Amino acid sequence: QPTAGKYLVSPYGRRYRVWETFLILLVVYSAWICPLEFAFLRYLPRAPFVVDDVVNGFFAVDILLTFFVPFVDKKSYLVVDDPKKIALRYLSTWFIFDVCSTVPFRSITHLFTRHEHNLGLKFLNVLRLWRLRRVSSLFARLEKDIRFNYAVIRCTKLISVTLFAVHCAGCINYLIADRYPDPARTWIGAAHPDFREDGLWVRYVTCIYWSITTMTTTGYGDLHAQNSREMLFGISYMLFNLWLTAYLIGNMTNLVVHSTSRTRDFRDMVQAATEFAARNQLPRQIEEQMLNHICLRFKAEGLKQQDTLDILPKAMRSSISLYLFFPVVQGAYLFRGVSSSFIQQLVTEMVAEYFAPKEDIILQNEYPSDLHLLVTGEVDIVAFLDGTEQVYGKATEGGLLGEIGVLCNKPQPFTFRTTKLSQVLRISRPKLMDIIQENAEDGEIIRINLEQVNV
Amino acid sequence: QPTAGKYLVSPYGRRYRVWETFLILLVVYSAWICPLEFAFLRYLPRAPFVVDDVVNGFFAVDILLTFFVPFVDKKSYLVVDDPKKIALRYLSTWFIFDVCSTVPFRSITHLFTRHEHNLGLKFLNVLRLWRLRRVSSLFARLEKDIRFNYAVIRCTKLISVTLFAVHCAGCINYLIADRYPDPARTWIGAAHPDFREDGLWVRYVTCIYWSITTMTTTGYGDLHAQNSREMLFGISYMLFNLWLTAYLIGNMTNLVVHSTSRTRDFRDMVQAATEFAARNQLPRQIEEQMLNHICLRFKAEGLKQQDTLDILPKAMRSSISLYLFFPVVQGAYLFRGVSSSFIQQLVTEMVAEYFAPKEDIILQNEYPSDLHLLVTGEVDIVAFLDGTEQVYGKATEGGLLGEIGVLCNKPQPFTFRTTKLSQVLRISRPKLMDIIQENAEDGEIIRINLEQVNV
Amino acid sequence: QPTAGKYLVSPYGRRYRVWETFLILLVVYSAWICPLEFAFLRYLPRAPFVVDDVVNGFFAVDILLTFFVPFVDKKSYLVVDDPKKIALRYLSTWFIFDVCSTVPFRSITHLFTRHEHNLGLKFLNVLRLWRLRRVSSLFARLEKDIRFNYAVIRCTKLISVTLFAVHCAGCINYLIADRYPDPARTWIGAAHPDFREDGLWVRYVTCIYWSITTMTTTGYGDLHAQNSREMLFGISYMLFNLWLTAYLIGNMTNLVVHSTSRTRDFRDMVQAATEFAARNQLPRQIEEQMLNHICLRFKAEGLKQQDTLDILPKAMRSSISLYLFFPVVQGAYLFRGVSSSFIQQLVTEMVAEYFAPKEDIILQNEYPSDLHLLVTGEVDIVAFLDGTEQVYGKATEGGLLGEIGVLCNKPQPFTFRTTKLSQVLRISRPKLMDIIQENAEDGEIIRINLEQVNV
Amino acid sequence: QPTAGKYLVSPYGRRYRVWETFLILLVVYSAWICPLEFAFLRYLPRAPFVVDDVVNGFFAVDILLTFFVPFVDKKSYLVVDDPKKIALRYLSTWFIFDVCSTVPFRSITHLFTRHEHNLGLKFLNVLRLWRLRRVSSLFARLEKDIRFNYAVIRCTKLISVTLFAVHCAGCINYLIADRYPDPARTWIGAAHPDFREDGLWVRYVTCIYWSITTMTTTGYGDLHAQNSREMLFGISYMLFNLWLTAYLIGNMTNLVVHSTSRTRDFRDMVQAATEFAARNQLPRQIEEQMLNHICLRFKAEGLKQQDTLDILPKAMRSSISLYLFFPVVQGAYLFRGVSSSFIQQLVTEMVAEYFAPKEDIILQNEYPSDLHLLVTGEVDIVAFLDGTEQVYGKATEGGLLGEIGVLCNKPQPFTFRTTKLSQVLRISRPKLMDIIQENAEDGEIIRINLEQVNV
Repeated sequence: QPTAGKYLVSPYGRRYRVWETFLILLVVYSAWICPLEFAFLRYLPRAPFVVDDVVNGFFAVDILLTFFVPFVDKKSYLVVDDPKKIALRYLSTWFIFDVCSTVPFRSITHLFTRHEHNLGLKFLNVLRLWRLRRVSSLFARLEKDIRFNYAVIRCTKLISVTLFAVHCAGCINYLIADRYPDPARTWIGAAHPDFREDGLWVRYVTCIYWSITTMTTTGYGDLHAQNSREMLFGISYMLFNLWLTAYLIGNMTNLVVHSTSRTRDFRDMVQAATEFAARNQLPRQIEEQMLNHICLRFKAEGLKQQDTLDILPKAMRSSISLYLFFPVVQGAYLFRGVSSSFIQQLVTEMVAEYFAPKEDIILQNEYPSDLHLLVTGEVDIVAFLDGTEQVYGKATEGGLLGEIGVLCNKPQPFTFRTTKLSQVLRISRPKLMDIIQENAEDGEIIRINLEQVNV
Repeated sequence: QPTAGKYLVSPYGRRYRVWETFLILLVVYSAWICPLEFAFLRYLPRAPFVVDDVVNGFFAVDILLTFFVPFVDKKSYLVVDDPKKIALRYLSTWFIFDVCSTVPFRSITHLFTRHEHNLGLKFLNVLRLWRLRRVSSLFARLEKDIRFNYAVIRCTKLISVTLFAVHCAGCINYLIADRYPDPARTWIGAAHPDFREDGLWVRYVTCIYWSITTMTTTGYGDLHAQNSREMLFGISYMLFNLWLTAYLIGNMTNLVVHSTSRTRDFRDMVQAATEFAARNQLPRQIEEQMLNHICLRFKAEGLKQQDTLDILPKAMRSSISLYLFFPVVQGAYLFRGVSSSFIQQLVTEMVAEYFAPKEDIILQNEYPSDLHLLVTGEVDIVAFLDGTEQVYGKATEGGLLGEIGVLCNKPQPFTFRTTKLSQVLRISRPKLMDIIQENAEDGEIIRINLEQVNV
Repeated sequence: QPTAGKYLVSPYGRRYRVWETFLILLVVYSAWICPLEFAFLRYLPRAPFVVDDVVNGFFAVDILLTFFVPFVDKKSYLVVDDPKKIALRYLSTWFIFDVCSTVPFRSITHLFTRHEHNLGLKFLNVLRLWRLRRVSSLFARLEKDIRFNYAVIRCTKLISVTLFAVHCAGCINYLIADRYPDPARTWIGAAHPDFREDGLWVRYVTCIYWSITTMTTTGYGDLHAQNSREMLFGISYMLFNLWLTAYLIGNMTNLVVHSTSRTRDFRDMVQAATEFAARNQLPRQIEEQMLNHICLRFKAEGLKQQDTLDILPKAMRSSISLYLFFPVVQGAYLFRGVSSSFIQQLVTEMVAEYFAPKEDIILQNEYPSDLHLLVTGEVDIVAFLDGTEQVYGKATEGGLLGEIGVLCNKPQPFTFRTTKLSQVLRISRPKLMDIIQENAEDGEIIRINLEQVNV
Repeated sequence: QPTAGKYLVSPYGRRYRVWETFLILLVVYSAWICPLEFAFLRYLPRAPFVVDDVVNGFFAVDILLTFFVPFVDKKSYLVVDDPKKIALRYLSTWFIFDVCSTVPFRSITHLFTRHEHNLGLKFLNVLRLWRLRRVSSLFARLEKDIRFNYAVIRCTKLISVTLFAVHCAGCINYLIADRYPDPARTWIGAAHPDFREDGLWVRYVTCIYWSITTMTTTGYGDLHAQNSREMLFGISYMLFNLWLTAYLIGNMTNLVVHSTSRTRDFRDMVQAATEFAARNQLPRQIEEQMLNHICLRFKAEGLKQQDTLDILPKAMRSSISLYLFFPVVQGAYLFRGVSSSFIQQLVTEMVAEYFAPKEDIILQNEYPSDLHLLVTGEVDIVAFLDGTEQVYGKATEGGLLGEIGVLCNKPQPFTFRTTKLSQVLRISRPKLMDIIQENAEDGEIIRINLEQVNV
């Protein structure tokens, strides 16, 4: 929909999507390397620093690019592609944060000094985590995108948050131990006296192990706080975990409740039908028809279909009905030769229904209340005579059911029973009569059509 | 329903069900022995290997059998019994996995070499866990089968998953310790230096004990990771447990919420009725009638019955009503001699209701709006005269209530009060009058019936 | 309601309730002493054994008593007071269990032998826990009794289960340690080498401490399993705790969700109203009226009142309306002299509504659609003339609002605005007209009443 | 609203709110210092005691002030400003508790004796925690105040409770250890033998660390109970934690379920619409219209708006409609010159609807069922001629759509399609016709208006 100008980049275009996805990967890398650098800087090889500058470069490019990406105004729902407005909006919102998280502080400082372990500098580097807002907005968008499974997106989000929290806590706890004056009185030093001699991998795994042991509240106790600093950090981390765990469980409960609700509804419905049949000692045949119908409803989700239509405005519902059923109705023998306007009025008042195989659509001797039109499927015409059922014929696609009863206002002479899964259009007698009265000529044509066929 | 051919095996037949249940037992055995072999192979006696080959044999038979089992097409809901289509479907879906999980790799290798502790071979054996999909699909089917309690099935499923996870984790953790070069620096070796001398049972219990201590996040700390390998496995296991626990709690919450909802609804309803009575200072008698009625609704689940009927198509509802109430209506004195079609129209418009003992169905002097017909139970005919209530008579099964008021359009001369639990059919006056008008002859018969009895 | 015979004990009578409550206290004592005896028998003083026999005596009396307590038949909802049926029902259900849990096995054995520490005898004593079914059925009954708060009952139940589980697990774990051949290799012996010398109280507290540490998954690790037996018991207990904890959380979530739902609904409603007013820039006065009305609805729970009435059958609703509103309607000037049957018809069609102070009931110039009758409160009669509002009068209890507009079918000449919290009866114009038409004489009286007052 | 007297303090006034907020801060200080004094009294500096007396002074002032604050009667919802009633209510409810929690027991005792470590005195000081009821009632009020986010308030409340519990438990556990005869056999002494020599800060952090380790069930085991007293306290604290944790999770689940419900509903709706379109192979254009409409509904929350209006009484709805739409309807060409009463009747029957851009409001050839009036936005008038769509004109704000079809009862000659987000008023044909019939003169004016413009 956006009418992006000459130099503008469509935010919904394929190329921009690829670029965004690529940046997300870089963000993930940043989120992992940034706490690691913060804690283990002096043990890291040189490579990450070069990679860091390259990554910063990409984000610098993205800052420039943002000035050429139109946005959707929140009030009028219109796309704004005026470069000035785009720039104004960006400058007044996130520009300054984006720039701060992109400046290569370390490389700059490096030109003047060699004090890499400077804590202030480290904190500047942590600004890079601002980039995580991209991941956050990505998840917000994916949650509303029905092409992706909601549960999967939600779980991925929670796993990401969990892993990031575990990673950060492990790194910070190491930093605290590393900077403590007496290595023997630290959580890691008490268990591994020579921990500074261990390789980076062993130390990192130990940190993550402590972190996850604490988060899941397993708390073996082989690694635990030894001084007030570590205790304070442990207190904050455990309080945070209490909330994170509660949040995880809350989300899981939400997903479980939602995912099982359909099965529960189905069970409740079948249970009620079975109990009803047992209590009233209904014959086996009727019980089976009931169960078939309930199963069909849940498989074909006919229920939802009607709900979907109900929230649409009348004109939209009409145009859907016209598209779907106009040809079928026009082809029915009764409506041969009537005006197109008449059929249009008829179609917009019709309701579609599904019937499972072996279900009765109309009962013999029933008071006629609806005219039915078979869209798909097949129907047996049955009459109950002298105590036995006899099949008089079949109605196929496009056939009308019970038209004589409805138009002549007589009890239905036949039972109509499906033999396959069938879709049926239904219009109530009063509505049909109203439409015929207001279109007297078409009513006459219908009368003639009826007589020609049934006499 | 399936029309299985000569050589076909009906998937709903009893024999196939027994066979499937038998296979499930074998799957459970496989799921238990497979990780055990994986971890403790060199300590196991010879017996399981023979059993293993026998089990494989049964699964090989099942692969062959599957070619003769018809399936239900997901689109048309029809049973497909064409052998070619069955074969095609199986070959294109799970055949290859089933075969891989059945080949007795160990026995084959055993013919050529004696290296039983080969890790690659062990991994091939783990393929056997593919069989677990049978358990998974069994639970999916049982959840939808109302003959089994939903909560029980769901809990069994979760317990199975928990036990399997505990079993697997214990075995894998033992394998890691067993293969570590320095036995003293393993989780089990640090606590039990001579653990390799312990019996299989002691070692297995210790593994499961560690596993369950970690899963429930108890984490005593008597057994804990000692090296990076074990820490890595511990990290993965604890992360998995975080999710499993959240999933357990989510499911439990779902079951609790569902199981208490009926009691809550009942309480809310009784509470509201009691408060209403207290606020308006209703007399004790009316309050009791209200509470009795609410209790009855929840005991007899009259509510659900109406919901069940509402989702059925009209023809099905009619045939149920006809089956249940045709004879009763036909037997009422007012409808003696009227046409069967008239009674049919009447019955399909009638609604069934239950009344608790001592409830009023019709009030004296009330404006007549419905005709009632007593199906079961007993009703006192009461009149309020000179300030005292007098019982004029009783209506029993098949009796009409308030017919004079309705047909002559006069205020009801009597109050009708139940003495037992009663079921009553109700038809509204306008609908009754419509049906009488359209069947003039039957209307005349009814008029005569009414006069004969009441004059 | 039960018509208990001469020697029968009414199950709803006060004395039986007291007796039942007393037995519940004994059950609680049994539930506490039984596992304690099981584990600590040789350290217990003699006193409990005497108490035990007395308690058994009371339960023996209850067994006899049960033969004289009528019960409610589950099918017909009738009280059965035939002694034979009562005896038959008890003998065929719980009699045998009740007897087994009451026989004083220990005292009997004591007569013949002195081996008190016999394990088989101990297990027989555990049969006493069968009595707990009384507590279980007590909670089931209390949950349905609205005189008790649901959350409190539910929490008490869960706390009881938790405490009992903790108590039992502690005792069993002590028994395992006490019977282990090597006291130093038990969970308690490893920490307290001379634990057998400690007092009963210290040992019991240590057991409960271990039990609760494990149940809450704190798992400090100061006390932990030392041998396979203890590990096996620990495994079962931890698995059980996993489920108990999930069940606790599920119940708590259920209670929280239910208890906050009213506040949430209120917030949602107020939020929606405020947003609606802001979006459409409604004047301050209308917004306040909206908020007042919403607050009133939630305070007075007018909503629930209507729901309560809706589920009652028509005759019951009519009798409530008659009881509440007949005198008020009869006292209105318009209905002076009309027949009592007419007023009755009117009242059963009326709907009660509450209005907050300063709300408009009828707007000037509005098309008249309902007749209102003020039951309680006070209403200002306001007219908007030349741009200013003028108060023309007041309507007090029993006053009619808008009767001229409704009866003469003219736009309402006045606005009616409440000055206090008011209850108003409302009947729609078509229904009123129907009733007047069918009672021509009363209609004439009303016409005269109207003319006399308003001319 | 309160009409506070001369010397009365309005409870809703700004100054009283500031005073209350200030007191809340003092309460928070008390809640923190009170358990700290209780446990660490002999290590505390003198400063808190002076502060304490000042704080007590402020609360004493508040006690006096309360006699001048009107309150809202719970029954009549009226403000009571009679000083006698205010005093009576306060004296009979919380006065005595407030006084007890304000008396400076320590300072008083200090005058007579120097025994500061007296335990009884300490317990008197704990009475100060009674002040917490202010925090509790603050949260209860904030929860119902829609200016604050519900989730934030709820989380703040839970965090406060958690922190207070952690703080209290830490202090009490220290007190138990501090008073134990053998310092080496206490939870803190076992780990830090010279703990009495440590600074206050180190000891306080250690207490909180133990407390949080136990509450989150991490239970490292580095600090654990060493004697029966500590075990008993640990048992109670762990049981309490079990419930607190379950309560936290319950609340979190509640918040998560509520916060995700909108997104879920949106997803379900879009999913159903997409599936419906795919199953019926609807053309791309109709599918897009459906999705646009659903998105608009969720963005503009049109749904909620209607719900809000539905619960209001009729007169209020009418006055809102009049305020919003009277000028627009009066300005429409068709209603030029008609009486103001006619327009008023019309407006109260109209319903407002939103349409997304490119949606059809009326379809060509549709049977006319509603008259539409464009309030905001823009609409294209389109006709389908010879298979192509042609735009005949535009309707702007205040324009009528489909008036000829409705008034002349002919099929609509044009399709009306929005080009912008549009708000449309709708009145159904039967209602319009009713109003015109009852206002014959206005009907004539409308007829003339229609002819003048359309001829």
